[in-house]
Amino acid sequence: MTAKQILLTADEMPRRWYNILADIKMNPPLGPDGPVPAEGWAPIFPMNLVEQEYSTERWIDIPEPVLDVLSIWRPAPLVRATALEKALDTPARIYFKNECVSPPGSHKPNTAVPQAYYNKIFGIEKLTTETGAGQWGSALSFACSQFGLECKIFMVRISFDQKPYRKSMMQTWGGKCVASPSTETKAGRDILEKDPDTPGSLGIAISEAIEAAVSDTSGKTRYALGSVLNHVMMHQTIIGLEAKKQLEKVNEYPDVIIGCAGGGSNFAGLAFPFVHDKINGRDIAIYPVEPTACPTMTRAPFVYDHGDTAKTTPLVPMHSLGHAFMPPPLHAGGLRYHGMAPTVSQLIDEGILEPKSVTQLAAYKAGVLLARSEGIIPAPETNHALACVVDEALKAKEEGKEKVILFNWSGHGLLDLAAYDKYFSGDLEDYSLDDKTLEESESVFADFPKPERLTCR
Amino acid sequence: MTAKQILLTADEMPRRWYNILADIKMNPPLGPDGPVPAEGWAPIFPMNLVEQEYSTERWIDIPEPVLDVLSIWRPAPLVRATALEKALDTPARIYFKNECVSPPGSHKPNTAVPQAYYNKIFGIEKLTTETGAGQWGSALSFACSQFGLECKIFMVRISFDQKPYRKSMMQTWGGKCVASPSTETKAGRDILEKDPDTPGSLGIAISEAIEAAVSDTSGKTRYALGSVLNHVMMHQTIIGLEAKKQLEKVNEYPDVIIGCAGGGSNFAGLAFPFVHDKINGRDIAIYPVEPTACPTMTRAPFVYDHGDTAKTTPLVPMHSLGHAFMPPPLHAGGLRYHGMAPTVSQLIDEGILEPKSVTQLAAYKAGVLLARSEGIIPAPETNHALACVVDEALKAKEEGKEKVILFNWSGHGLLDLAAYDKYFSGDLEDYSLDDKTLEESESVFADFPKPERLTCR
Repeated sequence: MTAKQILLTADEMPRRWYNILADIKMNPPLGPDGPVPAEGWAPIFPMNLVEQEYSTERWIDIPEPVLDVLSIWRPAPLVRATALEKALDTPARIYFKNECVSPPGSHKPNTAVPQAYYNKIFGIEKLTTETGAGQWGSALSFACSQFGLECKIFMVRISFDQKPYRKSMMQTWGGKCVASPSTETKAGRDILEKDPDTPGSLGIAISEAIEAAVSDTSGKTRYALGSVLNHVMMHQTIIGLEAKKQLEKVNEYPDVIIGCAGGGSNFAGLAFPFVHDKINGRDIAIYPVEPTACPTMTRAPFVYDHGDTAKTTPLVPMHSLGHAFMPPPLHAGGLRYHGMAPTVSQLIDEGILEPKSVTQLAAYKAGVLLARSEGIIPAPETNHALACVVDEALKAKEEGKEKVILFNWSGHGLLDLAAYDKYFSGDLEDYSLDDKTLEESESVFADFPKPERLTCR
Repeated sequence: MTAKQILLTADEMPRRWYNILADIKMNPPLGPDGPVPAEGWAPIFPMNLVEQEYSTERWIDIPEPVLDVLSIWRPAPLVRATALEKALDTPARIYFKNECVSPPGSHKPNTAVPQAYYNKIFGIEKLTTETGAGQWGSALSFACSQFGLECKIFMVRISFDQKPYRKSMMQTWGGKCVASPSTETKAGRDILEKDPDTPGSLGIAISEAIEAAVSDTSGKTRYALGSVLNHVMMHQTIIGLEAKKQLEKVNEYPDVIIGCAGGGSNFAGLAFPFVHDKINGRDIAIYPVEPTACPTMTRAPFVYDHGDTAKTTPLVPMHSLGHAFMPPPLHAGGLRYHGMAPTVSQLIDEGILEPKSVTQLAAYKAGVLLARSEGIIPAPETNHALACVVDEALKAKEEGKEKVILFNWSGHGLLDLAAYDKYFSGDLEDYSLDDKTLEESESVFADFPKPERLTCR
C-alpha cells in the first residue's frame, strides 16, 4: 500500500508563522495625509494585530492557546493524489494539502482563530466581518465560539441566497448573519437605494462590516478581515510550512505550486514559504488561479485602490478591477473580489508569481473529476485551482516530465452542492468580461497615486 | 500544548477486521425451510461477501485495494475532547473517534468501500441500496465511483425532502437517487397505493432496493446494505481497532463506550473490539444509544422478524418494533429503523451491552454544546450519542470519578443544518410512543419462531 496521506504528529506542527515582509519590499498603505501609520488602524483592528501587519520579523511565534484550537484539525494531511494521477495517466507526482478537514471545512480558520484570540486578549468582546461564499464567516463564527466572542457577519446577498445553510452553520456556532447590502448600515442603505436588486459584493460587505465595528461607541467591537492583509497571509503560512515538512518526509520538492486566489490567502498560505526559496534562487513555477470572470491578476493593473466599495479603507497597492467593480454572480463567491492581497500583487509585479485564469465551466469539470478520483467534493473556489492542476498534469504528460505538482485543496463543497446540481443540469454559465466594461470599472483609480516599482531580487 | 488529536501513521493502520462471530453464538437466519444456507443469499449478495457473513474466523484480512481507498481518510483521528471536559468541568477524560473526516462525512464508507470492492471482483456491475438520512447512500455512491460501479439509491422520502443536497452529493459521485417509496418497484407502488403521503421508512426502501437488484435478469446487479448484517459490523471494526491502538499510545483504556445505534454499525465498529475484552473479563460499560421515538433496543423484544417491510428478507434474530413499524419523522434518519443488528441484539440479550435512549431535543442540545466546544457540527444521529456522553460526564463529576469515556463521532451535520435551524427556532419536537401503538406494531411477529437463549460466557 502506498501511503496516501503524509501526516505530521502534534509535535511536528509548526510553532511559528513565516512573514514574507522580511523578504520583500512593499509600497505603504496611503491615507489622505500620506502613508498610514500603525495607529491609523486602531479603530478597526486591535493593536496587537496591527503590529503583526507592520512587522518585518521573518518568524513570529504562534501563541499556545491558538495552537490548542488549531490542533482540533491540524497538522492537516498532505495527500498524494494517486487516483488523479492514474485518471490522467500523467508522469507528474501530484500532492495536495487537505484544508477541508477543519470544522468549517476550509483553510479560513487558520487566521480566524488567531484573529479571535488577539482580539480577545486585547479586551474586545465582539467582531464584525463580511463573507462571500460563507467560508470566512463560518470560520470566524467558529473561532469566536472558541474564545467566547460575539460575531456579526455581513454575507454577500447572492451567496446568502444560494447557500442558505451557511447561515445555519454560523448560527450553530453562535454567530449572527445578515444578507449584504443590509439596512443596518449607511453603506448598505445607500447601495440598496440605488440598486435594490443588487447581488452584493465583497467590497460592499466590507464597507458594512467596518461601519458596524467603528460605529460601536463602547470601543469593544472590532472588524476582522479574512484575506488580503499581511497578517492574514502570515497566519495562513502554517499550510505551506506543514507541506514543506511533509514533502521532506517523502524526499520531494515541488516544481509547480498552485492555489486559487480571490483575496489571496489560501494561495499565499501554501506558496509563501516556497516563495522564500524562490527569492533565494530556487526554480519553482508558482501559479495563483482566478476566474476569467473576475480577472484581477490577469487583466487588471497594479495600482493604488480602496479595499472596499464605500472607500472606507486606505488606498492599498494591489491589482484591482476598481473598487466599484461588480463581479458576475459566480458560485465561487470567495473569488468575487475586485482586488488582490498587496503581498501577492507585489510578487506578481516582480514576476515571481505567474497568475492564471480559468472559466467557471472548466473549473467544475475539474472539480467533478477530482470528486470521482480523490473522493473529496471540492469547494467552487478550489475547482479553479484544480482546473490548473489538471492542465499542468496533462502538460507534464505531453512533455514526458516527472514534475512534482503541489496544490491547496482549500475547502470542500458540501455547502455548495446546489452549484453542482446546476453544473450537471447544464444551467451553469460562463461569463466573459469585455474590455470596455473593464476600462470603465478601472477608471475609478485613475487619479490615485501610483505604486513604486520595487524589487526584492 | 496537549496533543488534541492522537494520530496513527499509515503503517499503523489495522490490516485485519475483527469478527465477533468468533466470540459469540448466534441464532441462524430462518427461511420457509429452516436455517438459510449461505447459497440462499446468492441472488442478493455476491458470494465472497456471503462467506464473510457466515465466517467465524476471528480475523479477516483487509484487501490491499480496500486499504488504498480507506487511506484517503484513514487512520482517522482519535481526539481528546478537552474543550467539552472544560465546559462540563468533569474529572472524566473524554475521547472520540472522528469519523467525519471521510469524503461523505461519516463512518459509512468503512463498509461501502469493501462492499463495492468485493462486488467488483465478483463481476458485478451495479449496486442498489436504500438510504435513510443519506449518509449510507452517499458513502456507497462514493465507493462505487472508486471502483467503477453503477449505483442506484432509494432514499426514504422524508429525508429526501428534508435533505435535498444529499441527492446532489450522490450525483456528484455518479450515483442515481430516487425518493422511496417510488413507482419503480412493485413494493413501492403497493405502499403508495395504500398511503400516497407516506414519509417512507428504511424498511420500505430496503424492499425496493432488493427488488431492483433481484429483478435485473442480467445477473450483474446486487444489493448492498449499510448496516445490520454481520459483515457490515465487521468492516466497521477498523474504528475500534484504531481507537485501541491510539488509546494505548496515551496509556488509556475506556471505562465507558458510547455510540448511537440505528442498525448498529457505527456503534459496533467502535465497540466490538472492546466487547471481545469484556467477554474475556474486562470491566467496561458499553452503551448503544437510540431515540426514544424509535426504541428498538430499550422497549422492543428480542424476536425473529423480517428486516424489511415487504418481508423480502429471511427472519433474523433481533430486537424489533415490528417490520411494519413507521417511525416518527425524526431528523436522525439513520436511527429510524424498526430492527437492530442481530449481533448487537444478541449481546444486549446477554447483558453485555446496556442500551440507552434519549429524546430528540436532548440530542440537539448536546449537539450544540459539542459544536460550540469541540468545534465540529455533529450529525443528528451522532447527537444521540453525545447526549449520553454528557450524562456520563456529569455523572462522573457528581461521583468525583476520573472515568475514561470513549465515543464515536459517527458523522458531521453539514448536510443536516436545516434541522439545526428548526432546533434554534423552537420548531423541533419530541415524539413519544404509547404502549398501545407499540403493542400493535409488535403483533406482526407473534406467530414467528422465537430465538433460542444463547450465551458466550
